[in-house]
Amino acid sequence: MQPWKSFRPDGVILFRSAERRGAGTRGAARARPPPRPPPSSLCSDILTPLPAIGLEFEIDDAKGPVLAHTVRDAAAVAALHALDLTALPFIGESLTALRAEVGPSGAAVLGFVGSPWTLATYAVEGGSSSTYTTIKRMALSAPDVLAALLDKLATAIADYAVHQAHSGAHAIQLFDSWGGQLPPAMWDVWSGPYIRRIVDAVHERAPGVPVTVYANGSGGLLERLGATGADVVGLDWTVDMADARARLGPGQAVQGNVDPVTLFAGDAAVDAAVAAVLAKAGPRGHILNLGHGVLVGTPEGAVARMFDVSKNARAAV
Amino acid sequence: MQPWKSFRPDGVILFRSAERRGAGTRGAARARPPPRPPPSSLCSDILTPLPAIGLEFEIDDAKGPVLAHTVRDAAAVAALHALDLTALPFIGESLTALRAEVGPSGAAVLGFVGSPWTLATYAVEGGSSSTYTTIKRMALSAPDVLAALLDKLATAIADYAVHQAHSGAHAIQLFDSWGGQLPPAMWDVWSGPYIRRIVDAVHERAPGVPVTVYANGSGGLLERLGATGADVVGLDWTVDMADARARLGPGQAVQGNVDPVTLFAGDAAVDAAVAAVLAKAGPRGHILNLGHGVLVGTPEGAVARMFDVSKNARAAV
Repeated sequence: MQPWKSFRPDGVILFRSAERRGAGTRGAARARPPPRPPPSSLCSDILTPLPAIGLEFEIDDAKGPVLAHTVRDAAAVAALHALDLTALPFIGESLTALRAEVGPSGAAVLGFVGSPWTLATYAVEGGSSSTYTTIKRMALSAPDVLAALLDKLATAIADYAVHQAHSGAHAIQLFDSWGGQLPPAMWDVWSGPYIRRIVDAVHERAPGVPVTVYANGSGGLLERLGATGADVVGLDWTVDMADARARLGPGQAVQGNVDPVTLFAGDAAVDAAVAAVLAKAGPRGHILNLGHGVLVGTPEGAVARMFDVSKNARAAV
Repeated sequence: MQPWKSFRPDGVILFRSAERRGAGTRGAARARPPPRPPPSSLCSDILTPLPAIGLEFEIDDAKGPVLAHTVRDAAAVAALHALDLTALPFIGESLTALRAEVGPSGAAVLGFVGSPWTLATYAVEGGSSSTYTTIKRMALSAPDVLAALLDKLATAIADYAVHQAHSGAHAIQLFDSWGGQLPPAMWDVWSGPYIRRIVDAVHERAPGVPVTVYANGSGGLLERLGATGADVVGLDWTVDMADARARLGPGQAVQGNVDPVTLFAGDAAVDAAVAAVLAKAGPRGHILNLGHGVLVGTPEGAVARMFDVSKNARAAV
């Protein structure tokens, strides 16, 4: 509610903060940005459902998420259970409350989930990774185990996404945060099909709820993200909006993609960056946004400026 | 010489190891891979020329390169001097020795340099960065200062690359390691033109020496890298080779792009990955390579396997 009260955005998202250590069993905790790119305070949030399938974790200030155990063989996969929504009561309660609070204004309540591949990287590696060696090796040398894990995760995440839609989310954001670390031919096997299952599940079980799919550093994956059936492709700042439009075609709605660092550079820089993205995206099928989350230390006035200039730009269309 | 003696590759590269602390004044030191992606043991190597223009640095085991001072205003830029090759005697000596040792075999001796933008990130941030906030802010709010810094770096790096060619390097690899962190429209201003100056300088002052340009996570930049005038575009594993061929056109030579993690997954995985890249790249204008450096912990036998299968594949063409 804090950003809602400050900025009156067109969309609000559920973010649940909790104590760092031992917080995993209760839900999401905010991870300190890791020391190397890409920063992702989303890690802890996309991990929220893991305890509800049998994967406990903690957030370590230095290391980020640390899982209580890793999932590296068939027995560990078999031990995972179906999503237990009773372990996540706060999700439905919070979304319903948000919907009641902001819904009448016309603002969208956004649900969000991680992709099966991205959640699997944490389950297999045991936490954050810089090289994804263990899970990629599993893909190449124990593909049945990884496929079984991804199948279970896809089912759980589909249930989780649908639950969020049924609890009040107007739209679902699906983060394949580490999908861009896969060679695209491996993404076609290990990430894309499982994303598609979740998109299809939301479309079937929560008709009218659009899905946005996003991956960090997706310049090698754009067309593939568009082919998942997602309603919107979210873009970070490493792809030019004009290039993305050309590669995805005019019929594909897009979201993004102002560089979050722009908000450190003063009002003129914010104004210019917003104008450039709007001009490249054109007047239809574009949700103006940053290309990633607001960075730690961003001046609050710059966030306000971005909202102001965006709303004025919209009024001028 | 160690990999040369073990594997007889088609190319060898100068890598200079030194003590960690205080090594900056003598040249390159091997940095421990940073804890978050992308890993880059190249950092210290591309930084080698910095002391020769007045920028001393140390390698800290935890933090990576740490510069003795940052370059954030016009005075600091003005204090940088032209490349003093007498501060880098080992470069010419080593390349000449390498050329004498491996040249008769027909193997290529590779020189390498960092891009002005990438070296500037270290000079401005004072070391490694996850968000590049200071230098991007400088680009947006003090563009004259950044342009002056990049101008000096481009001149120095061009001299450095030409010196390597004149000392025996058959080809130059130019690493725009952090170019992919720029929005492409900013890359067009702050990285591309300075890369082009270096490519042109090598072509003019060392005719016949080709230049390969590479950026980490370059899926949003591919066409731009091709437009630098570089003879070869190096690809990491985050772009599919078939997509890269389609985007760059059949006339653009490419290098890469087997995922380095493949070497952890056994001979069959190595064989399959090499075969897939070769099939997608086609028989001409392709230098088979990993998409990044060999990762710490890679089994030496897997490196040997990659060389074996690659040489056999070549023989079969």
